[in-house]
Amino acid sequence: MQTTPGNTRKPPTLADVAKLAGVSLATASKSLNGRQQVKAETRERVLSAAEQLNFSPNVLARHLLSGRSGTIGLVTHDLEGRFSIPTLMGAEDAAGTGKTSVLLCDARGDALREQYHVQALLGRRVDGLIVVGARPDPRPSLGQLPVPVVYAYAPSQDPADMSVVTDNVQGGRLVAEHLLACGRSRVAIVTGDAGYGAAHDRVDGATAVLSGAGVEVLGGPLYGAWSEEWGRTAAGLILNRFTDVDAIISGSDQIARGVLDALREAGRRVPEDVAVTGHDNWEILALNARPQLTSIDMNLEELGRRAAALLFDAIEGNPHHGTEVIPSRLVPRGSTGPKPA
Amino acid sequence: MQTTPGNTRKPPTLADVAKLAGVSLATASKSLNGRQQVKAETRERVLSAAEQLNFSPNVLARHLLSGRSGTIGLVTHDLEGRFSIPTLMGAEDAAGTGKTSVLLCDARGDALREQYHVQALLGRRVDGLIVVGARPDPRPSLGQLPVPVVYAYAPSQDPADMSVVTDNVQGGRLVAEHLLACGRSRVAIVTGDAGYGAAHDRVDGATAVLSGAGVEVLGGPLYGAWSEEWGRTAAGLILNRFTDVDAIISGSDQIARGVLDALREAGRRVPEDVAVTGHDNWEILALNARPQLTSIDMNLEELGRRAAALLFDAIEGNPHHGTEVIPSRLVPRGSTGPKPA
Repeated sequence: MQTTPGNTRKPPTLADVAKLAGVSLATASKSLNGRQQVKAETRERVLSAAEQLNFSPNVLARHLLSGRSGTIGLVTHDLEGRFSIPTLMGAEDAAGTGKTSVLLCDARGDALREQYHVQALLGRRVDGLIVVGARPDPRPSLGQLPVPVVYAYAPSQDPADMSVVTDNVQGGRLVAEHLLACGRSRVAIVTGDAGYGAAHDRVDGATAVLSGAGVEVLGGPLYGAWSEEWGRTAAGLILNRFTDVDAIISGSDQIARGVLDALREAGRRVPEDVAVTGHDNWEILALNARPQLTSIDMNLEELGRRAAALLFDAIEGNPHHGTEVIPSRLVPRGSTGPKPA
Repeated sequence: MQTTPGNTRKPPTLADVAKLAGVSLATASKSLNGRQQVKAETRERVLSAAEQLNFSPNVLARHLLSGRSGTIGLVTHDLEGRFSIPTLMGAEDAAGTGKTSVLLCDARGDALREQYHVQALLGRRVDGLIVVGARPDPRPSLGQLPVPVVYAYAPSQDPADMSVVTDNVQGGRLVAEHLLACGRSRVAIVTGDAGYGAAHDRVDGATAVLSGAGVEVLGGPLYGAWSEEWGRTAAGLILNRFTDVDAIISGSDQIARGVLDALREAGRRVPEDVAVTGHDNWEILALNARPQLTSIDMNLEELGRRAAALLFDAIEGNPHHGTEVIPSRLVPRGSTGPKPA
């Protein structure tokens, strides 16, 4: 144990050091800070007092005098950590070793809770904020704040703000190009909730490429829910109407898992008879699928790194404006392949 | 945008306020702090300077003088956020509104990275640390640190430390009791990597209850991997050897998903012919299963709340020792039910 009753080791404060050294708080601070002019003799007295009290160089105090706290706030709305953790990891990478620490708050999709967290973080003098949305649709701006803000995953509605988002249109294009390269021409699309911009963006990217090759989406895109159950149901509807379907584009890995199950139970071989793609590259779902699922990886760590890099640049006085888009990449696995001749 | 080139709004420092008010840094601090004696006239001058400079009450400065930073560090090893996010949410709840902020670091299963993060957090003067493991096996202690530490999910090997863990033995018992109540007597167990203490603990809890009722585990527990594929393979092995199996206990929800798939493809009805249980209550897997999966919820948010409560108590000078166990609960769904007569 670190402390025992009656003998709590409360860390010494700068005030304790100043008192022991017989100097003002400002002088004690300058002496430890090391960047401002203090008489050598005074500095020695303060350092000796700090050593005697076991006062370690205090990052907080140092930053306090510089007007920077060396911390950034990360406000997430993503309960399950699906998007915020890779973003956090990317931001940590970008922050570099020990220069910046991340204060994390979970706003749980609640605007009031977000306001509260933002105020609390400002009170802690964060140098900037990254706000990670739970879904990639535009969200209201936090407006004018005393520190820079970067909106990650969910962009701000205000084009004067800085936002970094995934590229859902390009992800949709990648999928369609891959399926065309696999020789597929009877293509259906099953995706999630039509209330999500991402659902439409992915469909738009895919249909643009398919139309360009003269391929129409069988029966038009099917919107439903981001669930396996909808994937199973929709695949059943498609098989009933279009027995010659040779590819099903799924708007998420969850949907794709349901599509795969329905195809297997209908006796269709994947990928020989029907190629299937997902979106998200959520490994717990993609790697456990039968066969393993070809999917779109949105490069969320890269998104986090980029959001942090933009934030640090703004903190240094070089703000950016508008929305930056991080390209996705295709991860080919066993659920797609050339159509047998 | 928050800042524009050439007009960066660098937040004013306490030093700026002191300078404008014509007082020492210590006096400015005491005036804003509000807890120490300062002449009314001086305080007024400082407050007016702070207002003029738009200097908001600075939590950092206030905490600096009290020897507390009002922050705790959360070091996680859980890449996918599966266990750390609920723990974080629980810790936030326990921290209460605005009193404590959480500095999050991801050590990514690397002991050196953990050491580095711990030192960085101590340099930031956190009041205490919560260390969240990636797997529930005992881990080396961080040893003597200047602030209290609570080990969450993965306990410390040192019984003098404070640890909070899930109860895997009791979780195993709950599953077995439920299956006995459902009238099952031909029970098999499929679980994950035998290198995990949690795998054995869950098996031990279940077999103790089953033996007590005179039920032997068919063929003994099968250890393998925490994957759907192993669930499918193991269920196939069980069906081959024990055609009259009427319940399969799975060590995780992933394994259970594989078991369910294998049973469906073998033409067995769930739960009529075979009841199936999971462990973790990972909703993305449990709610999408066919039928929905009965599982064990480890109450991770409660674990986080308890870890934070123990930490705050230790920060107040009341340290605890040893390992506290958070009970799990059974979440019954469609994959279990009474055996038809």
